[in-house]
Amino acid sequence: MNSIVTIAREVGSGGREFGRHLAELLGRPCYDREILAEIARHASLTESYVQGVVEQRPQFAVPIASGPITPFVADYAAMPSQTVYQAQREAVLAIARRSPCVIVGRCADYILRDLKPLRLFLHADLDWRVRRCLERQAPGPDALDEKSMRQWIQRHDRDRAKYYDFYTGLRWGAKENYDLCLNTGDSDLRHLAEAIAAAMERLP
Amino acid sequence: MNSIVTIAREVGSGGREFGRHLAELLGRPCYDREILAEIARHASLTESYVQGVVEQRPQFAVPIASGPITPFVADYAAMPSQTVYQAQREAVLAIARRSPCVIVGRCADYILRDLKPLRLFLHADLDWRVRRCLERQAPGPDALDEKSMRQWIQRHDRDRAKYYDFYTGLRWGAKENYDLCLNTGDSDLRHLAEAIAAAMERLP
Repeated sequence: MNSIVTIAREVGSGGREFGRHLAELLGRPCYDREILAEIARHASLTESYVQGVVEQRPQFAVPIASGPITPFVADYAAMPSQTVYQAQREAVLAIARRSPCVIVGRCADYILRDLKPLRLFLHADLDWRVRRCLERQAPGPDALDEKSMRQWIQRHDRDRAKYYDFYTGLRWGAKENYDLCLNTGDSDLRHLAEAIAAAMERLP
Repeated sequence: MNSIVTIAREVGSGGREFGRHLAELLGRPCYDREILAEIARHASLTESYVQGVVEQRPQFAVPIASGPITPFVADYAAMPSQTVYQAQREAVLAIARRSPCVIVGRCADYILRDLKPLRLFLHADLDWRVRRCLERQAPGPDALDEKSMRQWIQRHDRDRAKYYDFYTGLRWGAKENYDLCLNTGDSDLRHLAEAIAAAMERLP
């Protein structure tokens, strides 16, 4: 059985929830947003800054340091998002070396390619993803309506694709880059995780 | 568990072999080339004529009748490949109504969409498929060399895609049209079939 599972996913397809179920069934830790803290530690940046860069459209960005900085550290102030990618790479490698695990997002399929992880890509019909995200968003004045949610999902999918394509030279979501592409639309994610866990037990 | 499994596949990715293993593990019949005989029966054509039309680039074709024909049956002599598709549709529906089964190719995922089959798409790296086909071809003067095999695979993939796209209005191999896209490259197809059979037991 593969010791590492990587989960890439379209926005709203249930990657995080599926990953947690799968990790629980396999008795392994699941790393999703937890990786942001590791990346921040590797790059000495704040977690919120890292969150603003990781899986966003690649660009030069001005970081907010987690520690005190002086106006004289010019190189640091101009640190490009590439540096965050390097820290992400180190964080993902460190996590994978620690123990068998499930890693959601963060180009982990590519970063860990030499370790031959089981590479999953989760996707679903856009309408289903919009409905799922609408049901799950916190109510309040900032809650998105259907049209805005659709646009938000599509924009974030494009950002993920650009980020992945830029750093890996591969095409995000192209089935040839994954071992298994799973259509989660209309599925119960717990059942799906149970199915994949059962399948993994049969794989060498 | 889904009673019908449909397997679409890139040429050389192991769809037929995988389908036979999966059907055996599930205790169901597997229909692959057997469907040609059914189609021929539905359309009153010879099996070899059907073979020449099914999953080829759609075109008007002159059929060779399985029974005696006279030169006066002008409509029949001009029977287009669309008629074979209709016969294929009827054959696939008849097979699916008969009992739970595994069906390889023949646009079955689309034809049987109302029955909610488990729709698999098998694909693999082109180099792996070329090697696999070279190893499996019968030796002899007609055996293809590597370059010709690569061209043959690519041409047949294009034909399958054109056939599928023409009759379904969907895009062959696009992951959104399938429940599961499986990368068979470097895999043991028996193990993979065992994994999918185990996964199916967990699905509603």
